Amino acid sequence: MYIAIMGYGVVGSGVAEVLAKNHESIVKRSSQPELELKYILDLRDFPGDVNEKLVIKDFNTILNDDSVKIVVETMGGVHPAFEFVSSCLKAGKSVVSSNKELVATNGYELLKLAQENNVNFLFEASVGGGIPILRPISQCLAANKIDEIAGILNGTTNFILTKMINDKMSFADALKLAQENGYAEKDPTADIEGIDACRKICILASLCFGKHVYAKYVYTEGITKIALEDVEYIRSWGGVIKLIGRAKWLSDTKISAMVTPAVIANGSQLAGVNDVFNAILIRGNAIGDVVFYGRGAGKLPTASAVVADVIDCAKHTGRKKIFGWEDSCDNYVVDYLDMDTALYVRAEAENKAEAKKAIQSVFEGAKFLKRDNAPENELAFTTGVASERELRTRLDTLHCIKPLSVIRITDY
Amino acid sequence: MYIAIMGYGVVGSGVAEVLAKNHESIVKRSSQPELELKYILDLRDFPGDVNEKLVIKDFNTILNDDSVKIVVETMGGVHPAFEFVSSCLKAGKSVVSSNKELVATNGYELLKLAQENNVNFLFEASVGGGIPILRPISQCLAANKIDEIAGILNGTTNFILTKMINDKMSFADALKLAQENGYAEKDPTADIEGIDACRKICILASLCFGKHVYAKYVYTEGITKIALEDVEYIRSWGGVIKLIGRAKWLSDTKISAMVTPAVIANGSQLAGVNDVFNAILIRGNAIGDVVFYGRGAGKLPTASAVVADVIDCAKHTGRKKIFGWEDSCDNYVVDYLDMDTALYVRAEAENKAEAKKAIQSVFEGAKFLKRDNAPENELAFTTGVASERELRTRLDTLHCIKPLSVIRITDY
Repeated sequence: MYIAIMGYGVVGSGVAEVLAKNHESIVKRSSQPELELKYILDLRDFPGDVNEKLVIKDFNTILNDDSVKIVVETMGGVHPAFEFVSSCLKAGKSVVSSNKELVATNGYELLKLAQENNVNFLFEASVGGGIPILRPISQCLAANKIDEIAGILNGTTNFILTKMINDKMSFADALKLAQENGYAEKDPTADIEGIDACRKICILASLCFGKHVYAKYVYTEGITKIALEDVEYIRSWGGVIKLIGRAKWLSDTKISAMVTPAVIANGSQLAGVNDVFNAILIRGNAIGDVVFYGRGAGKLPTASAVVADVIDCAKHTGRKKIFGWEDSCDNYVVDYLDMDTALYVRAEAENKAEAKKAIQSVFEGAKFLKRDNAPENELAFTTGVASERELRTRLDTLHCIKPLSVIRITDY
Repeated sequence: MYIAIMGYGVVGSGVAEVLAKNHESIVKRSSQPELELKYILDLRDFPGDVNEKLVIKDFNTILNDDSVKIVVETMGGVHPAFEFVSSCLKAGKSVVSSNKELVATNGYELLKLAQENNVNFLFEASVGGGIPILRPISQCLAANKIDEIAGILNGTTNFILTKMINDKMSFADALKLAQENGYAEKDPTADIEGIDACRKICILASLCFGKHVYAKYVYTEGITKIALEDVEYIRSWGGVIKLIGRAKWLSDTKISAMVTPAVIANGSQLAGVNDVFNAILIRGNAIGDVVFYGRGAGKLPTASAVVADVIDCAKHTGRKKIFGWEDSCDNYVVDYLDMDTALYVRAEAENKAEAKKAIQSVFEGAKFLKRDNAPENELAFTTGVASERELRTRLDTLHCIKPLSVIRITDY
């Protein structure tokens, strides 16, 4: 059985490397007499590369070669990945993708195409890099109704926040360090604005709750506004700030889904997840909380997840795995303002004594936080739990303070 | 398709509960028109129980009923579980077991029987309760060569150690509390002596490395000798003591496997695993470290793992999943004394200054640890890395100290 790889970048070349390195055990587990890499599609040339001879420029070579049964898509971006993957599925080839943007955007459509053509479309590597998460959700947790998902889904932002928390580095310095270490792109927008995490929570929530979650409905807030002052207040409160993607089942036709910085208490298993590591917490009605933890990115971890899918496709040739989800309606994801939460607020106040009194009258049970060297006109507090809309409305009535930061407090 | 449950204790009744509670989604995922519980085998009566009518006393009723295709074994113990499971497999029924003692003892034999009869023998719930671990190892990590496994595999001992670490409770008091909370049996031997953890590392190592690991070859040490003094010294060192089951691939014909208390540095993801939680770390050659974390026991988490296996058996009726391992030779597991490690040692010394000098001459780079209120004649130190045999031999030459505790230091 032959394989083709489309896109010979970091992940694509990692896939070729893992296929070569663990070739014997991979073939053994695939139930095929042989699994061989036949083509690598890339517009670039790779002189001197061990797979140089396999590199082709024309997608049709793969499409028209019936001996290629499994195509790996590691190109990234939606176009032309979508067109190529669609064509492969229609031609009866199974496709394995690591492309979270593609799956988050067109997952439902491509899964349907796979279904219609009796082939498989798998994308374990699109979430959590090498951490096995989609397959455990779909199989191992089959006996559970999943109530909630929450995860640290982006390694770059987790690295930056870890540096801010542990080394008291500013956001700008931590971002610069992440770029120097190769953890962040030159243009870090997709990471630091939460766009990458949003794609991943869309995929997770689609699979967990059975209907496609479109990114445009998912409220997404990045970490660019997190200040060291907030980190310090939250430390004194007994927690850390993490960028959390989360989704919650509300009914068969309603879920919540959002990506925001969130306060996590130190006791939580998500609080100890540092540096570029990812962790995904699944809350099931029978299983309770299960956490999957590991490197969320990196050449070989991600490639190993792709190759596991390739093996699965090889094993399931000619039959369709039960894996996928339906389409969803426009109002499937509820407004995040309607969800209950507690808030952490940092604000300026000219008259602190008066402001504290006002805060306590508006937020019953508000707790004030402390940090060293706070300026005279700064205060920070936590509220009790109510709908975010309600809390924001009440906050707006407090004309005696000027809020600088508002961060949601979670119970994970 | 009909199911039978053998053993209506905590897990068995949980299985019946999960099957009823999530019936619709379970049937949907099983690819069967229906999945129904037909018999419950138990010697006891359950008057008033919702499943009272299904309870039978004679195993042959299940064995001779061809409509029963999947049998759940939640009896525990090796006999008669082994005989019953063997008979079911020979009769063409798939079996799902949560019985770690059975799998650790007869896993190879029963997997072979399943293979010969073209049915499945699955036991996800035997390790890590509800945490999906065996299936991810066998499938998602298919593209990896697994180098090492290390886990906190027993909730009872982890609860006791957590109480000792966080609340400075003595071992005896913590054990009593565990018994009062229902986490420890009246006879806690299997937990506190590491026997339960040993069975689990046997199963994990068998699956990861492909050959049955027999418990008798696995060096096993419990937590009964851990003193609060050790907890304090390790705290000052920057770590915690955990009961760790671990195994390491050395070659195709050699592995190491052991269960011992071990020092874990605070930065490690295993260090933050507290109370009755379990965590299993898998180190793969492509994926790096992946950790699976969750409740290692409990009625519904364990039952949900059993039911996931039931669904898998239903989906794979008439064909065999690729899952299992070969038998092993007598000297497959190497002597633990031949493995490299660093040690923590606490000892009595009449003349401390002299003793420290002697220790430093025998253990180059030895580091001495401190704790509050230590008696005048007590000292504690860590050694560098060498084979345990070598370190023990050197320790024996130190006649000026009397070792009270020796604990291995890990690098997980």
